[in-house]
Amino acid sequence: MSTMNVYAIPLLQENLSLIEDRMRSRVSPQHLPDLRAALDHLLSAGGKRIRPTVIVLSGTMLGAPREKIISLGAAVEMLHTATLVHDDLIDGALLRRGMPTLNARWSPAATVLTGDYLFACAAHLAAEIGSLEIMEAFSETLMVIVNGELSQLFGGRGLWSREHYYQRIYAKTASLFEMSTRAVGLISSMERREVELLAEMGHHIGMAFQIMDDVLDFTSEQLALGKPVGSDLRQGLITLPAIYYIEEYPDDPYVRALLRGEWQDEKVVDRLIEAIRNSQALKQAQEEARYYVSQALDILHGFPMCSERQALEEIIHFVVERNV
Amino acid sequence: MSTMNVYAIPLLQENLSLIEDRMRSRVSPQHLPDLRAALDHLLSAGGKRIRPTVIVLSGTMLGAPREKIISLGAAVEMLHTATLVHDDLIDGALLRRGMPTLNARWSPAATVLTGDYLFACAAHLAAEIGSLEIMEAFSETLMVIVNGELSQLFGGRGLWSREHYYQRIYAKTASLFEMSTRAVGLISSMERREVELLAEMGHHIGMAFQIMDDVLDFTSEQLALGKPVGSDLRQGLITLPAIYYIEEYPDDPYVRALLRGEWQDEKVVDRLIEAIRNSQALKQAQEEARYYVSQALDILHGFPMCSERQALEEIIHFVVERNV
Repeated sequence: MSTMNVYAIPLLQENLSLIEDRMRSRVSPQHLPDLRAALDHLLSAGGKRIRPTVIVLSGTMLGAPREKIISLGAAVEMLHTATLVHDDLIDGALLRRGMPTLNARWSPAATVLTGDYLFACAAHLAAEIGSLEIMEAFSETLMVIVNGELSQLFGGRGLWSREHYYQRIYAKTASLFEMSTRAVGLISSMERREVELLAEMGHHIGMAFQIMDDVLDFTSEQLALGKPVGSDLRQGLITLPAIYYIEEYPDDPYVRALLRGEWQDEKVVDRLIEAIRNSQALKQAQEEARYYVSQALDILHGFPMCSERQALEEIIHFVVERNV
Repeated sequence: MSTMNVYAIPLLQENLSLIEDRMRSRVSPQHLPDLRAALDHLLSAGGKRIRPTVIVLSGTMLGAPREKIISLGAAVEMLHTATLVHDDLIDGALLRRGMPTLNARWSPAATVLTGDYLFACAAHLAAEIGSLEIMEAFSETLMVIVNGELSQLFGGRGLWSREHYYQRIYAKTASLFEMSTRAVGLISSMERREVELLAEMGHHIGMAFQIMDDVLDFTSEQLALGKPVGSDLRQGLITLPAIYYIEEYPDDPYVRALLRGEWQDEKVVDRLIEAIRNSQALKQAQEEARYYVSQALDILHGFPMCSERQALEEIIHFVVERNV
């Protein structure tokens, strides 16, 4: 956020609040107090809210009806939150954004069902947008996301291939960004060609976002992320920085040990994380994220200049310049 | 199935096969072999397929487009299957329909994600029907189902109240039947009043179905159900037969023990199950299920006679006359 404060954009903050209100409106008085408190916490805990921000800014830029922007933003963020609830359960994560996860306090049963409830809410919010095409895209995206997680669970550990990596981060992150900006195009009644360009823009933002997440996993201190440095590699997930390092030093004995499947050996992984942190691999990965950002900006620059477009540029830059 | 074989109805069997094919078409070659096998198993294991049967018969009776009948049947059965996968995980059930459940073989992580994948497929199938109103009803129904399970998890054990019981079985079973027949009305372009009547018919069928399930939990042998006799009460779930018994014998010392919360005491529960089995309570509960059936039939009889209507009558009778 170098040159301007994007949240000074007229109505952005207000629209983000409306999205949050819309999400929280699904927590009803009929819910038991415990559950109500947990849902309230989940839906207002926030995080970066980058998806709703991209949706509000691009939707406003393109003149989409406000009501549909709010429903779309709430549906996407709700879907994202639902996937996080099940992810944290699966990973046994106890902290998220520095706060205890649902499964840190609750039984697996309650956590599974709460995630399911949020999926149902997300589908309901998506239906409110009033477009069958968006509804189909929405459910397809959820299929892609869950499929990606299943593939990772069944066969993704210890694999290092660029193709596999790009597929995985597409499923995990870029697919939902892509769906979001495609849906923005649809609710703005853009022409088909522009809808596809917008989808591509979202795709690039998502790819850049996830690559940066993977870089930050190596560079951020435990305090900022709430998990140990190099946590992906510790779980056998080989992300882009590790791929660059492996390509550069295929004969490093620790690389060889890793590729033999010894990623559960703490010494091997500690040594590799240190080596990656001291190598050019992180810079190379960040460069690649910047390349996706430049592709996204190229598309964005095809739309007329306005304060929302400028704010969106800032947000897209922020994706690769952030340090949390 | 007393007087006729409903499966002799022209096209019923064929339509049910098409529904199964449609469900299985979501299992793609990109899935890993393990997962493909598990999905295949889940989607073809069958069960009674009562929901698709009701949808096919009532849809054909009302002249709905066949393509939409298939999508609706597949969407509803997929949603039902998804909820079963998470239910079995939550209950730790190892058998369903006499076959090992997913969680009996797989990790909780894989089971959670497989359920999520089936939810996504269900939403996608529902979107294919091409009606936003159905899509909204569909996601609302999922909210009702999951909400019911959450309420049960957080506060439902050991509670005995009719109001609570009816709410619970509506959420668990009747809501999805109601949504199914409402959707049949919508794809058949019925008038609003008829759509509501159809929804009511589905509601009554669902209530009768669940009450009979609760009766069968007391009467069926372990072999037929794949779980011990009285398994609901053993888990602290007080269903209609137990409610009738409690109302009749409030001073029975075992009833008092139960209501003091001693439902985890095996002696208390064994004694009560025996007593309920030997009492009028099961007959009374079954009578109540028959009352719902008669209400459903009253509505059905408002539609012109045809072979599908006759088959639907048989199916509705079967709901309360079945012994598994």
